[in-house]
Amino acid sequence: MKKFMGDDFLLQTKTAERLYGAVCTLPIIDWHCHLDPREIAGDKTFGSLTELWLSADHYKWRVMRAYGVEEEFITGGADDFEKFEKWAGVIENCIGNPLYHWTHLELQRVFDCDIPLSAKTAEKVWKHCSKVLEKGLRVSDILKKFNVELICTSDNPADSLEFHRQIKDSGMNVSVKPTFRPTDLLNIESQNWASYINTLSGLTGVDISDYETLKEAVFRRADIFATYGCTMADHALDPPVYQSEDDKILDITIRKSLDGQVLTAEEISGFKTEMQVDLAKKYSELGWTMQLHMGAVRGVNTTMTALVGADSGYDCMSGGDYSGALLRFLDRLEVTASLPRTILFNLNPKDNDMLVTIAGCFQGGEKGKVQLGTPWWFNDHKDGMKAQLRALAAGGVLGTFAGMLTDSRSFLSYTRHEYFRRILCNLIGKWVENGEYPADFEKLEELVKNICYYNAKEYFC
Amino acid sequence: MKKFMGDDFLLQTKTAERLYGAVCTLPIIDWHCHLDPREIAGDKTFGSLTELWLSADHYKWRVMRAYGVEEEFITGGADDFEKFEKWAGVIENCIGNPLYHWTHLELQRVFDCDIPLSAKTAEKVWKHCSKVLEKGLRVSDILKKFNVELICTSDNPADSLEFHRQIKDSGMNVSVKPTFRPTDLLNIESQNWASYINTLSGLTGVDISDYETLKEAVFRRADIFATYGCTMADHALDPPVYQSEDDKILDITIRKSLDGQVLTAEEISGFKTEMQVDLAKKYSELGWTMQLHMGAVRGVNTTMTALVGADSGYDCMSGGDYSGALLRFLDRLEVTASLPRTILFNLNPKDNDMLVTIAGCFQGGEKGKVQLGTPWWFNDHKDGMKAQLRALAAGGVLGTFAGMLTDSRSFLSYTRHEYFRRILCNLIGKWVENGEYPADFEKLEELVKNICYYNAKEYFC
Amino acid sequence: MKKFMGDDFLLQTKTAERLYGAVCTLPIIDWHCHLDPREIAGDKTFGSLTELWLSADHYKWRVMRAYGVEEEFITGGADDFEKFEKWAGVIENCIGNPLYHWTHLELQRVFDCDIPLSAKTAEKVWKHCSKVLEKGLRVSDILKKFNVELICTSDNPADSLEFHRQIKDSGMNVSVKPTFRPTDLLNIESQNWASYINTLSGLTGVDISDYETLKEAVFRRADIFATYGCTMADHALDPPVYQSEDDKILDITIRKSLDGQVLTAEEISGFKTEMQVDLAKKYSELGWTMQLHMGAVRGVNTTMTALVGADSGYDCMSGGDYSGALLRFLDRLEVTASLPRTILFNLNPKDNDMLVTIAGCFQGGEKGKVQLGTPWWFNDHKDGMKAQLRALAAGGVLGTFAGMLTDSRSFLSYTRHEYFRRILCNLIGKWVENGEYPADFEKLEELVKNICYYNAKEYFC
Repeated sequence: MKKFMGDDFLLQTKTAERLYGAVCTLPIIDWHCHLDPREIAGDKTFGSLTELWLSADHYKWRVMRAYGVEEEFITGGADDFEKFEKWAGVIENCIGNPLYHWTHLELQRVFDCDIPLSAKTAEKVWKHCSKVLEKGLRVSDILKKFNVELICTSDNPADSLEFHRQIKDSGMNVSVKPTFRPTDLLNIESQNWASYINTLSGLTGVDISDYETLKEAVFRRADIFATYGCTMADHALDPPVYQSEDDKILDITIRKSLDGQVLTAEEISGFKTEMQVDLAKKYSELGWTMQLHMGAVRGVNTTMTALVGADSGYDCMSGGDYSGALLRFLDRLEVTASLPRTILFNLNPKDNDMLVTIAGCFQGGEKGKVQLGTPWWFNDHKDGMKAQLRALAAGGVLGTFAGMLTDSRSFLSYTRHEYFRRILCNLIGKWVENGEYPADFEKLEELVKNICYYNAKEYFC
Repeated sequence: MKKFMGDDFLLQTKTAERLYGAVCTLPIIDWHCHLDPREIAGDKTFGSLTELWLSADHYKWRVMRAYGVEEEFITGGADDFEKFEKWAGVIENCIGNPLYHWTHLELQRVFDCDIPLSAKTAEKVWKHCSKVLEKGLRVSDILKKFNVELICTSDNPADSLEFHRQIKDSGMNVSVKPTFRPTDLLNIESQNWASYINTLSGLTGVDISDYETLKEAVFRRADIFATYGCTMADHALDPPVYQSEDDKILDITIRKSLDGQVLTAEEISGFKTEMQVDLAKKYSELGWTMQLHMGAVRGVNTTMTALVGADSGYDCMSGGDYSGALLRFLDRLEVTASLPRTILFNLNPKDNDMLVTIAGCFQGGEKGKVQLGTPWWFNDHKDGMKAQLRALAAGGVLGTFAGMLTDSRSFLSYTRHEYFRRILCNLIGKWVENGEYPADFEKLEELVKNICYYNAKEYFC
Repeated sequence: MKKFMGDDFLLQTKTAERLYGAVCTLPIIDWHCHLDPREIAGDKTFGSLTELWLSADHYKWRVMRAYGVEEEFITGGADDFEKFEKWAGVIENCIGNPLYHWTHLELQRVFDCDIPLSAKTAEKVWKHCSKVLEKGLRVSDILKKFNVELICTSDNPADSLEFHRQIKDSGMNVSVKPTFRPTDLLNIESQNWASYINTLSGLTGVDISDYETLKEAVFRRADIFATYGCTMADHALDPPVYQSEDDKILDITIRKSLDGQVLTAEEISGFKTEMQVDLAKKYSELGWTMQLHMGAVRGVNTTMTALVGADSGYDCMSGGDYSGALLRFLDRLEVTASLPRTILFNLNPKDNDMLVTIAGCFQGGEKGKVQLGTPWWFNDHKDGMKAQLRALAAGGVLGTFAGMLTDSRSFLSYTRHEYFRRILCNLIGKWVENGEYPADFEKLEELVKNICYYNAKEYFC
């Protein structure tokens, strides 16, 4: 029996251990996350383990609810230790859940604490970690500990990027770049769209009255983002739609939304399609990468979403097929020679294989131009990673994979890069030990190093 | 090489063996099956192995047909030994099929026979088992042998429940509770619906003429079921539909169907939706659990269904997406604070992960309120169970899982609980031996005991 | 650590090795491929490894593009060695891709070369293989080396079959039978349909003016194919459609297409449905097997398809559900007692389990009458094969499986039969060593021999 989460955690062969040795100290490029640049700029400290762990993590909230914990102890007014104690009582029942491993990796790596968390050990762990926090653990300490080289945040085109500027000016050891995430722009059906456009207008000085002026304003923001080192955009397609539309119709659609009128499904699809096409062309010109996130359904529990807000654990996978819309979108860009590097993320793992084959149809001129992204959200676990790596390997070129990201709101999530590296090395180790690839360690180490670090550096830096 | 289906069957580590030791003697709560209460009440004996095994088991019929056996030897007039002989010739070719394991578990546990069944051994096995049957093996002997504590049958709201009463009165050692399965009620498009409503009317004394009176009659039956210890309802959604509808329209729809008129798709969906919503509210008041079975297509072979009837092996998985209708149904109940404990069963395993994420959006106030059920029907095999357990563990709280049920028409199927327990303990054993969870046997035994017995006892008793 | 692709490649137990020993020398029945009968008839030699490997293999083209290789070195004008060198630089990054194994199996078996191919070894491997080619390696040498007994090619009903005749007359040691693949016939929406019908008319002497005469012409071709030993037809359903239609409407549809008019979606579906039904009935009369290939989307990259043509690596999986149309098609044939033996192939592996359950609903009178086919195209790899074998075993009768085919355009692909046999024996070996099936080697060898050779011989010869 192996030691619980010891040095050889998830490494089942000598080859896996050797390969992991080659990547474990590589810097981290976290090319997609939801960290708050304000907290990095302020080099935040943390009041308690509950603040660090439970104040914004809807992954944990979901399993707490599934275990029957009352909302009072999740997003409610209970005190920090009470919430932590509830969490401790839940996590010990989460065998097989990535939260179990994340929790203990975070305890081990950040707090030097190797006590398995449970109702019984809650107080002991709390005290142990509180001491570390009281010493003034800062964001910069964590980033240094994990050897983080680059953080790509997720930012609204209307964001002033002032904290990115502050970070840059501060001379911090880590590079923090914005990512252009035009969700609010694309949601023309939203009641807040007119107000959003107003903000955008104010920020850019462009009087937005039709599709042409809207594009102009948005492109100006993209150019500004570029000056902040931005190399990526991120679109949440819930789900992808495709309906090509005439500019004149788009002008009418925009005016209707600005006037507070309800749009038809066709008008919404037409706007989203054309705006996404034009944004993609802009990304292509700027040399950016486009991330497409597909297959989520958000806020499905009306009551709880009203109570605790969006992004609070009430989202799920869709089971629908969006391949038609995606194919037409990619083909349209290819026809006009303006398809940027594109990463496809699917929330329903049934689509892994399909997306690998779709990616394979839109390549050209660079390594892994269109590729399946790291397992997203509900798939970010051991089985999910193995499935994604196997699908990508069997249907594409694993050696071009851009590798891991955290997609997290928490500074402790950098342990997920370690988790990924162990899983990757273990998979490849098994193949090699089983005679499926030569034991050529020079090449093998190159492969895992590329996937864990150098590919992302080449693609996104 | 391990012995064929020996004591350590499916247990690949010492940890797995130890955990299985902790659960193998626990009583069985079979919270969903299709056993005939009349046969329990009558404490039936069995004429032959063919009667026990082949007279009602469409799983076996399907593989016999796939092996080219003529219908004469399946549901036809061939004699019992001939049918058995054909089966013996088929099963030896079913390597990797759960029927292979079920067959031999049943031979070993019930008949103390460890001969692998094949064309060659058919006669020997037949003779061996016939001796046991001739000694007068009774239903009560089988239930005692398997330590069955509770059986939840599947019952029509129009069922008189007389056999449930007989069983209760008989002082049998096992508890047998009805489950409320309103399939006939919901199938308003059926030609038999008017006659069904007539029966319901007679049974309840309610003059059913519109939606309100229909509900009244149905709720009376639910109340009666409750007095028989019923704690569950079971809906077959083939597939889920959702269309909210006005009561006045429902009145018209009901009258049309009673008058023998053909209904529109909208009328059918509207009735099913509203009746399911109102039933779910009733279940919630009664503290019942609602089972939702989704993704089956039934009777797809018209010729054979006409020849041998429904539930005879001519059903299959659907590939469609029903998440939209399911989400709206659950949300509607949540909005009115009337969502009962709900178990989601999917026939197409591609939906495992999606349903785990949907379940995670509708929790509250109790452990595992909404959860993914045991692998259903075509998924009730080793790979299917591993996939379901892994999906549930990775996306939810495995420790809250309600565990195994037989879903069977056969008294011999209690071996499936053993099969499940071995697979569960093996999976958890591997995780522990691989350092993925602490070797804390007190906690581990608590986890597997809960999943194998105590959770179901807490939820359904 | 096992030797890289040594004698025990993919065989992880003694049982697996023993079972593989029983099948490794069995002849090959390649019951579905795209080899060119002209090249067999001409007993072709090969100018270079590039001609053999890279001139027609879109699997390789896809990974080359994904690695960023320019089209010049793929389908373009670069010289043979340059193309090969590029390929060598790509393949070493394709760890986990079946191309890695196919490449090295082909090097080992055909060229007696056990050097792992990479940028570094490219020249050495090239020289080694060139020597073998210079000695005049012929198609007949390859077929003999692999012990190929039967090749079923894919042929247009309008094909004259002259090369099949030549092969027959030549007294070659291998049997080469045509397969009836009416893709051009079914694509009534194509601009080339009228010209195709004209060819068919000329070939058969039937004046095709309506549905009846079209059927007559097509059936004549089927009868001719039968005289050439054809036992199979192959339909590419992209995707399956089902809409029953009146003959009179079909007559109008046919005339419209012949006149160059654009057809409605209903007209197209109606024609395809009825023609497929009538073809299936004809196959049933002829005792043929019908292959149905489902779930592909072809030519999705408009630009590249225009540049390099169809079947050049711009196809992908669909994510849609086609079960409704498939079920109605099979049921229609069953109702008229004219369902031929049918093999179902799915491109999206999410449909494995569903198709196994659908196949189970349409059996009768022969072993494995309707069954899930070998993993198709993008699924033809180790994980894909294991998934298909497990799905088929768990939901059907593995012992009736018709086994492997190459589906390839390359004479070197016969190594894929070895690949399959190793994977099959390894899977069964694991089950046996784990106590899941008796170590009855007589029966086990019968099972693997049937799957690797005898079933296909019985079904298709």
